[in-house]
Amino acid sequence: MPSISKKGQLMPQSPIRKLVPFAEEAKKRGIKVLHLNIGQPDIETPKIALDAVKNNTISTLAYAQTEGSETYRKKLANYYLKQQINVSPKDIIVTTGGSEALTFVMGTIADADDEIIVPEPFYANYYGFAHAYGVKIVPIVSHIEDNFSLPPIDEFEKLISSKTKAILINNPNNPTGYLYSKEEIQKLAAIVKKHNIFLVADEVYREFIYDESEHHSILQEPGLDEHAIIIDSVSKRYSMCGARIGCLVSKNKDVIKTALKYAQARLSPPTYALIASEAALDTPQSYFDEVKKEYVSRRDLLISELRKIEGVKVAKPNGAFYCIAELPINNSDDFAQWTLEHFQFQGETVMVAPAAGFYATDGLGKNQVRIAYVLEKESLKRAVKILKEALKSYNS
Amino acid sequence: MPSISKKGQLMPQSPIRKLVPFAEEAKKRGIKVLHLNIGQPDIETPKIALDAVKNNTISTLAYAQTEGSETYRKKLANYYLKQQINVSPKDIIVTTGGSEALTFVMGTIADADDEIIVPEPFYANYYGFAHAYGVKIVPIVSHIEDNFSLPPIDEFEKLISSKTKAILINNPNNPTGYLYSKEEIQKLAAIVKKHNIFLVADEVYREFIYDESEHHSILQEPGLDEHAIIIDSVSKRYSMCGARIGCLVSKNKDVIKTALKYAQARLSPPTYALIASEAALDTPQSYFDEVKKEYVSRRDLLISELRKIEGVKVAKPNGAFYCIAELPINNSDDFAQWTLEHFQFQGETVMVAPAAGFYATDGLGKNQVRIAYVLEKESLKRAVKILKEALKSYNS
Ligand SMILES: Cc1ncc(COP(=O)(O)O)c(C=O)c1O
Ligand SMILES: Cc1ncc(COP(=O)(O)O)c(C=O)c1O
Repeated sequence: MPSISKKGQLMPQSPIRKLVPFAEEAKKRGIKVLHLNIGQPDIETPKIALDAVKNNTISTLAYAQTEGSETYRKKLANYYLKQQINVSPKDIIVTTGGSEALTFVMGTIADADDEIIVPEPFYANYYGFAHAYGVKIVPIVSHIEDNFSLPPIDEFEKLISSKTKAILINNPNNPTGYLYSKEEIQKLAAIVKKHNIFLVADEVYREFIYDESEHHSILQEPGLDEHAIIIDSVSKRYSMCGARIGCLVSKNKDVIKTALKYAQARLSPPTYALIASEAALDTPQSYFDEVKKEYVSRRDLLISELRKIEGVKVAKPNGAFYCIAELPINNSDDFAQWTLEHFQFQGETVMVAPAAGFYATDGLGKNQVRIAYVLEKESLKRAVKILKEALKSYNS
Repeated sequence: MPSISKKGQLMPQSPIRKLVPFAEEAKKRGIKVLHLNIGQPDIETPKIALDAVKNNTISTLAYAQTEGSETYRKKLANYYLKQQINVSPKDIIVTTGGSEALTFVMGTIADADDEIIVPEPFYANYYGFAHAYGVKIVPIVSHIEDNFSLPPIDEFEKLISSKTKAILINNPNNPTGYLYSKEEIQKLAAIVKKHNIFLVADEVYREFIYDESEHHSILQEPGLDEHAIIIDSVSKRYSMCGARIGCLVSKNKDVIKTALKYAQARLSPPTYALIASEAALDTPQSYFDEVKKEYVSRRDLLISELRKIEGVKVAKPNGAFYCIAELPINNSDDFAQWTLEHFQFQGETVMVAPAAGFYATDGLGKNQVRIAYVLEKESLKRAVKILKEALKSYNS
């Protein structure tokens, strides 16, 4: 039998995927599983986007333009202008989800064995995208005690070598919900300029900012044009994860020129999804206001309920729809599996994402889980109650 | 300014892309460009597929299942059964176009510096997908004089080393239109078994087989289950290139398990396109019969008209919708650009794909172009007439 590549053997599995069979087994036993583990919002997609697809007049479903149509990129540039991000259509390559944009960035800025510094915990698939290209993720720990804020700049400096090509942040962050302040973005800007490396910001949760906070995009930072690369996506913004449309934005012409070559090889982003994404740009502000209100109330409920559980520590997130909770356990992989295999409370159980999968440093996150608040409040409240009972039972 | 990766700098550009600005300039000068260069069929997409999308009842456009839904994969397995290809849903991973399936295969079977043998000329993007992963394409020349049939097996043997992980064929072939015979598939089967490597067959043109010919899939070959990997796509089959749905099919469980990890990292294939693709499986046979009839008559017209031009050599293809034509010129890159920049005949010109881009061996294909017969016959006939006039004018 011919053998699988070493790279393929070492390619990490999604940390949640391992639990899926246990969730399926639980469902087969008649137990309802409340999913606190996923990043798939239950929010409805704007009607204007759905209708555009239903009313399409396509007769030959042709390849779209490799970098996305000029009209879509124009409207998108306009959207960014409204966010005080000054870009033009030629600074944008439309991709198949933010996921593909991340892959293009890896191929554009790093060779095999090059390094990219990423504050951890981080979106687990960064590791997969980097691994596929032989690129090394160098983690820098952010701590729950500090609310997962930016690690001190001298910690970054210690990690920068001739192999370092970029710092990659996710703002606001999955899994922590942390929103970087303007000062933190400025610190990062200074360090990438000093060391002449890229600053990549995954801003797919840009629209999910709560309380009085404001989002600071790296492309708002003066003098950073040659260094800044933004990853973006319609997935969360318009609750249309299944569209698979994202983009890569940079004012660095060489970055765009190079990423475009990767884009050409795969021909085009999905045509129907482009129709939906273009229409979605006309979504009224009221939609976002509603969605935000919903997430704020879910977050407030989640955090206050979690804090009532003995031994649980949780930082209040300012963005996205996740938080990291520290639990009074030693091994959240084991706990997450146990809640699916051996626990139920009034016919229900919960599925949480063990946090170790969001850390590159071995041993970190073992007593943490990521909780996504993508359930409506009634279920969310019940889910936390179940979690509380599960912890009690697991620890006894 | 931070620097682009070496890999990014060396990433090949699509051979056609370089000509696009010249075509745009010609159009600006009021000249109509007849496109013989593209693989985008003008054929209509089956109505059943288009209607399924128009009638969708989605309210939250959610991520699809990473490997494609069970229902779609079941129907797809059924389609393969009808083609005498015996596979089950678990042998299939649904991908974002055949393009993504090719990328997953690279990551699954080859590490950086590993080699994959490909008969040339070949689909130019193979080179890009391999390059992105640091994998080397080792070309083996097939000749226009032999109608681009399989090179002798001992030529393959000469190229096989410890770095060789697979032979990759495209059947029927883009750009040659060549359809491998059962005997050729058997020869390849024997050699991959002998050397314990994979046989990857890109069968995206499986449905485009002409005259009395029959398609022989590598998965019909007994004893090849552990070696065979098929790349497939709805793009050409149902003239729905813009959907971006393809798949990877293998009975080798390790291949599926590994490719699935790459699939997980990018989350899901596009949801609307899955709806279209699932519905397309109910396309009546009459649709394919019509399409085939159309392509056969285009091909016959194209080949006979081309053969009337002095100094033009062309092999009659049995499949797909391309052919390679040898022209009485020395540099088809220059010629292709010249027809756009400096030539017109009654207000029109043609755009052809220079064939050098389909060869990995330097210097080959310089007097060849690829012609796609995706124009209706009236335009196709005019296009060949223009080509004839252009050659006359270019050579004088
Ligand atoms: C931080 C982050 N980046 C990127 C993505 C990729 O999203 P998509 O490919 O759907 O745009 C996700 C999805 O969950 C995410 O959480
Ligand atoms: C031989 C071959 N393989 C694969 C592809 C990729 O097609 P897609 O990604 O649209 O499925 C093409 C497209 O032209 C092709 O010609």
